[in-house]
Amino acid sequence: MASPVIEPVARLVEAFARLPGIGPKTAQRLTYHLLRAPDAEARTLARALIAVRDEVVFCERCFNISDAPLCPICRDPARDDGHLCVVEEPLDVLAIERTGEFRGRYHVLHGAISPIDGIGPERLRIRELIARVDEAAAGGSQMIEVIMATNPTLEGEATAMYLGERLEGKVGSVTRIARGLPVGGDLEYADDVTLIRALQGRRAL
Amino acid sequence: MASPVIEPVARLVEAFARLPGIGPKTAQRLTYHLLRAPDAEARTLARALIAVRDEVVFCERCFNISDAPLCPICRDPARDDGHLCVVEEPLDVLAIERTGEFRGRYHVLHGAISPIDGIGPERLRIRELIARVDEAAAGGSQMIEVIMATNPTLEGEATAMYLGERLEGKVGSVTRIARGLPVGGDLEYADDVTLIRALQGRRAL
Repeated sequence: MASPVIEPVARLVEAFARLPGIGPKTAQRLTYHLLRAPDAEARTLARALIAVRDEVVFCERCFNISDAPLCPICRDPARDDGHLCVVEEPLDVLAIERTGEFRGRYHVLHGAISPIDGIGPERLRIRELIARVDEAAAGGSQMIEVIMATNPTLEGEATAMYLGERLEGKVGSVTRIARGLPVGGDLEYADDVTLIRALQGRRAL
Repeated sequence: MASPVIEPVARLVEAFARLPGIGPKTAQRLTYHLLRAPDAEARTLARALIAVRDEVVFCERCFNISDAPLCPICRDPARDDGHLCVVEEPLDVLAIERTGEFRGRYHVLHGAISPIDGIGPERLRIRELIARVDEAAAGGSQMIEVIMATNPTLEGEATAMYLGERLEGKVGSVTRIARGLPVGGDLEYADDVTLIRALQGRRAL
């Protein structure tokens, strides 16, 4: 029996299915969509894929994504050098920037410490973080605050704890973002750990 | 404030978000995945996208996707010319082929009649279907059966009805795939229309 499968179609389905969260059914649907969509749609996506690999680098200071050796935030002279926010991923920077609540600098670790997955501190951008903090202190402008904004997961907490110890005495203070009930959430449905954290983190009204 | 958005990243997020079923959050996650994945992953996807547009055509007989003027099924001399299965989309051909139950030929309409969406019969490959059927009859080998395998939706049913009328007298018989309870389904949760169809379509044990 001659296979009814068309090679280029099978290859595109396969390439889509390799992406996280895209199953074989979705990959098929995307492929058939692009077969019928205007020619420009597939080509624009292809060009954007190449450009993202050719033009995007990681900032050599904070390791956020960048289109130049230093990212737009590190280049911005208006940001506050005294406050540093440490996050796991570039997407976390975007999330915090959207709030408009933070005007300091960032440091992107590119992950969290996870012994189970074999990710030790040496796999993250921790050496560079310590060097940044040391350099600021050596330059006479010790950092006022380093905010640990790693995820509220086991790995994120462990990373924050580890960094807290490493940074002790090197900066004014090391803080951790609050864990508690999400705004708009329902106390009744909160998990125990979140509820405990919310109680422990209570503040005067 | 300098925007922390990197142009090539924003463009790829946008291109992904234009795909059906991919929201802005998923588009962001896919983009950041490809930023960190091995270089080959993004480039393989880009190449597959270009290839699908450059190398894939529609079969000039059945309008299924193809890598040559005639698709692998139309080229296959072992298939039965007397039975024709009419479907809405190329994905439907794949689904039926997977069953191994059908050894005839296909005709892909590329949609279904839908007055609400402004899709009349002239927008589908119906003229070509009638011509195929007429040609077979003129060649002395009238088709034995045309199976309407359009979707069990309002539009699919309307299309099947319309084609049934158009094909009357031109072929041995026009049939419609069965509507009923999906195998493994639960009668209790079946919708009324499906249950009515299942009762109407009952057969001797």
